[in-house]
Amino acid sequence: MTPEPTARVAMIGAGQLARMTHQAAVDLDIELRVLAGSRCDSAASAGAPYHLGSPGNLADIEAVSKGADVVTFDHELVPFTHLERLAEAGYRLRPEPRALLMAQDKLEARRFLLAAGFPVPAFTAIDSAADAIGFAGQHGWPVVVKARNGGYDGRGVHVIDKPDQLTGLFDSSSGRGPDTAWLAEQFVDIAAELSILIARTDAGNTALYPAVQTTQHAGICKHLVMPAPLPSHVIEQAGRTARSIAHSIGATGMLAVEMFLTTHGDLLVNELALRPHNSGHATIEACATSQFHQHLRAILDWPLGCTDLLSAAAMVNLIGTGSELDITGGLRRALEVPGVAVHLYGKTPRPGRKLGHVTALGDTTADALERARLAAGQMGLG
Amino acid sequence: MTPEPTARVAMIGAGQLARMTHQAAVDLDIELRVLAGSRCDSAASAGAPYHLGSPGNLADIEAVSKGADVVTFDHELVPFTHLERLAEAGYRLRPEPRALLMAQDKLEARRFLLAAGFPVPAFTAIDSAADAIGFAGQHGWPVVVKARNGGYDGRGVHVIDKPDQLTGLFDSSSGRGPDTAWLAEQFVDIAAELSILIARTDAGNTALYPAVQTTQHAGICKHLVMPAPLPSHVIEQAGRTARSIAHSIGATGMLAVEMFLTTHGDLLVNELALRPHNSGHATIEACATSQFHQHLRAILDWPLGCTDLLSAAAMVNLIGTGSELDITGGLRRALEVPGVAVHLYGKTPRPGRKLGHVTALGDTTADALERARLAAGQMGLG
Repeated sequence: MTPEPTARVAMIGAGQLARMTHQAAVDLDIELRVLAGSRCDSAASAGAPYHLGSPGNLADIEAVSKGADVVTFDHELVPFTHLERLAEAGYRLRPEPRALLMAQDKLEARRFLLAAGFPVPAFTAIDSAADAIGFAGQHGWPVVVKARNGGYDGRGVHVIDKPDQLTGLFDSSSGRGPDTAWLAEQFVDIAAELSILIARTDAGNTALYPAVQTTQHAGICKHLVMPAPLPSHVIEQAGRTARSIAHSIGATGMLAVEMFLTTHGDLLVNELALRPHNSGHATIEACATSQFHQHLRAILDWPLGCTDLLSAAAMVNLIGTGSELDITGGLRRALEVPGVAVHLYGKTPRPGRKLGHVTALGDTTADALERARLAAGQMGLG
Repeated sequence: MTPEPTARVAMIGAGQLARMTHQAAVDLDIELRVLAGSRCDSAASAGAPYHLGSPGNLADIEAVSKGADVVTFDHELVPFTHLERLAEAGYRLRPEPRALLMAQDKLEARRFLLAAGFPVPAFTAIDSAADAIGFAGQHGWPVVVKARNGGYDGRGVHVIDKPDQLTGLFDSSSGRGPDTAWLAEQFVDIAAELSILIARTDAGNTALYPAVQTTQHAGICKHLVMPAPLPSHVIEQAGRTARSIAHSIGATGMLAVEMFLTTHGDLLVNELALRPHNSGHATIEACATSQFHQHLRAILDWPLGCTDLLSAAAMVNLIGTGSELDITGGLRRALEVPGVAVHLYGKTPRPGRKLGHVTALGDTTADALERARLAAGQMGLG
């Protein structure tokens, strides 16, 4: 007879975040049941118990959530009205719907952050090319045009240099349909991109990780280093801002606050994610408590773990290309590189798809990054 | 469609070692199929694919091994003749049967080590109380009487102070049956117990972990610290001995060499385990590469990982008592202790059963041990 698990958690989604959360759940003997689109999804193929269904279908979400102590998320693609219905029906969603909205709806998030006094790039809701051109008249070109909902890994984000690039974006030929809501944002000259990872419990306890500096390409995180090699006053201000946001929005679980450090030295809040986040993957090897263990502890209102850094670290995402891959051969070559840890997500390669990541520890972030990139290169990825 | 795993490994046994190997296998997208006695076994409940059967049954071992690139072990309880049959049938067993015999048969191991020039306690094969008394006549009391096969966690080991304690040991009332083979060993005054963990590949590459000092009680490891706080000449000698043994026996995968440091300053080899080992659990948090990742890499003849220590560490086993347990409540209290990682094995509590372990990292091994013990105490275990 198996003993009762220490807790039952349902996770909506079964991607790599759910896969790594399952690995952490095994340590704590937590049952993590995931909502998977297929039994080949990353978390399902790693052995997490799963229910097959869609995050857009209320009945599927209810089915996986039944009996769970807490319901949490590996993505933000659940319709907000479903979240409200579930909360009303007594399911314990963590983060709560209102907090999760800050990751679902970029316009709501911007409005909330602005009203609460947090620094954000100038923005406005737009409906048409004319609106975007009007915004550019105030703030200058280029303009960043973003879909209000559903964008991730750079999808739904367009940097527009001149009016004729707006053609087609606001009609159904954009592939997003005429009902897509948009916002326009001031283009910011970025000196560095930071991600601040922080866990928060319902009771308001927080645990802040060392700051991460990310390098993005076409909206996808290419690689990161930890701790961010930036002046301490920047790091401290970013940490204070993230903690204050966590409390303001009532975050529960992991929160990633992505920020821009502008060339003028200003820190602006870009996006929020209320779950384990790509920018936190190096915590598995480099910190006393990984973001996946921490998310589980936070949503269950258990004591938070120590976030001390054990070593400087770097992470490189393994992103699919169009080329044929010899994954096993590449893995063997990557493991030749000293001090790297490879995490594969069990996914079929496709261009632009995150297939895994490599973390390297080192005496310095530069040294770690060099080896992580070398290993990723050996795999023909990243 | 799920991509092919990077490798297929079969593991005989589905206990906590298989559970933690499964977690590591997920990182490398290796399929680890385990031979489980029940679907509630530790590794099966963690999501490893499993075949139900017995390690004593050749057909069951073949069934789980079919299609695997390598077959490996979470325990030594497979009859040696089965191992030979499988190897003859073309299955790639790692470690190979002859090497695994060194962990299965304490008498064979002692004889091999003695012949190869490694220091071992004085020993002899015995069949009767008279033999044991004769051995004591040469080497003095107490005498350690051990079952040749099948003992673990102190089972099958008896420290005999005087002749009348031998009564009943050699007849069927001992519960081991009249066919049990025995050896007698000189009782050694132990100053410290060490475990040296080393990985070896078929090609003869090795990777040595920092030495571990264990504290045993009634034959079960209670706790350990890493690195072992012993003089460097002792550590170096122990490391050289372990590497030499790994090559001599042709070990593949993880090898744990348990040694005694006697009060006279001698290092004697006690037992060998050819698999991930309880004394290596702290490598999960404290080393760049855990022993579970390393075992998989070694048996697949992949490059071995870095064994550098990131932090001083201590581990305490969570061992079942007779008392009722509130595991979830205990876990919450244990997680209050700063810098500890708890690993639960998903087992029903029974007296003497290893239910999990706690690892703490710290500035010193003493500091880490204090916190690991505190956390174990909070769980009412260890």
